[in-house]
Amino acid sequence: MKEFNLLVGGPVMQLPTDLLTTKKAACWGGADRGALRLVKAGITPQLAIGDFDSSTAAERELIFKNSQRVETAKAEKDDTDTELAVRVILRDYRPDQLKIYGATGGRIDHLLANLFFILQPEFYPALDRITLIDRQNNISFFKPGTYLLQKQPDKKYLAFVPLTKVTQLVLYDEKYRLAGKDFSQPISLASNEFVGTTAKFSFTSGVVCVIQSSD
Amino acid sequence: MKEFNLLVGGPVMQLPTDLLTTKKAACWGGADRGALRLVKAGITPQLAIGDFDSSTAAERELIFKNSQRVETAKAEKDDTDTELAVRVILRDYRPDQLKIYGATGGRIDHLLANLFFILQPEFYPALDRITLIDRQNNISFFKPGTYLLQKQPDKKYLAFVPLTKVTQLVLYDEKYRLAGKDFSQPISLASNEFVGTTAKFSFTSGVVCVIQSSD
Repeated sequence: MKEFNLLVGGPVMQLPTDLLTTKKAACWGGADRGALRLVKAGITPQLAIGDFDSSTAAERELIFKNSQRVETAKAEKDDTDTELAVRVILRDYRPDQLKIYGATGGRIDHLLANLFFILQPEFYPALDRITLIDRQNNISFFKPGTYLLQKQPDKKYLAFVPLTKVTQLVLYDEKYRLAGKDFSQPISLASNEFVGTTAKFSFTSGVVCVIQSSD
Repeated sequence: MKEFNLLVGGPVMQLPTDLLTTKKAACWGGADRGALRLVKAGITPQLAIGDFDSSTAAERELIFKNSQRVETAKAEKDDTDTELAVRVILRDYRPDQLKIYGATGGRIDHLLANLFFILQPEFYPALDRITLIDRQNNISFFKPGTYLLQKQPDKKYLAFVPLTKVTQLVLYDEKYRLAGKDFSQPISLASNEFVGTTAKFSFTSGVVCVIQSSD
């Protein structure tokens, strides 16, 4: 499967404008309140997953009736709804791309959980297939290697964010370049920019998150 | 000086309700657009700092006329406005508490820069005096030790977020306890809760961020 979209329960106002109308025909999964939002937008999720504890009986019925598949799994104490959903999606649908919406805004412990879970051994192998997307930000994740990023037309800023100890980060052709720097702990190298329409970077160990954003 | 408040340039709607009216008499500093917001709210900042490049001539005049002190320092390439302001505030005002507002919402590279900068050697000594506050979140930082947290009445959730490798994290009396666990990389242990009005925790190395939040 090429692309799977997952809607989790973050604030609606952080979602890209008209997301649920422009991507109505896409392949969707919804975690908990995210599933309710999909169904209310007239989308039939391939998967609705969560404990649905925060939904009323009527809302649960709406979700159950209008989803291809429902998993009423309860998130383990150490799992978030996002992790639960991503686990099932990676295992059962094997998408090339998993785009997660609704993962930002509101509670920052949630945002950080949605950002850091890809570091866990269970999710690490798939991290380069996972993207978090909201109204202003596109967040992707990289294992050691050399990459050529494509500028997104609606985004101005480019940030490189080592999430772990990272060695030999080289920024070849960005507005602010880097010749090969080591970082011993997380840091956000914010407000960089593309010079042209692509940006080349490389590093030799750790995990780097790349954020394209607009004001 | 007991408490210094710093307003940086994040979206207004993430600020605590009525922040600038309820804390009108507090000691304030403003970084760039934050300084403009303070002055427009009728507050005379102790310090206005930034390059003010994004302000019009009229706005700059308004800031310069209505601030006790103006520093038109340009942030170094590797600095954010927040880091520039925090550096000057720690050095010249030596506050016991530095509360930073406007550091969340909008661009996630900014949010992460505002979260991770306390790990840098320059800021590490002062990290336990720095708090990031927005409408839904109160974020504080801890060095190794044993602590007793006070529950904030308006917050429901409690999260422990190792920002680095952290050893022997013990959660003694929270809803979800931990007996002494090591973490090799960042993780957000989200959605924990106070059982009473205090929560005890300890760890032996690394930096832990604690977030009290509400939905």
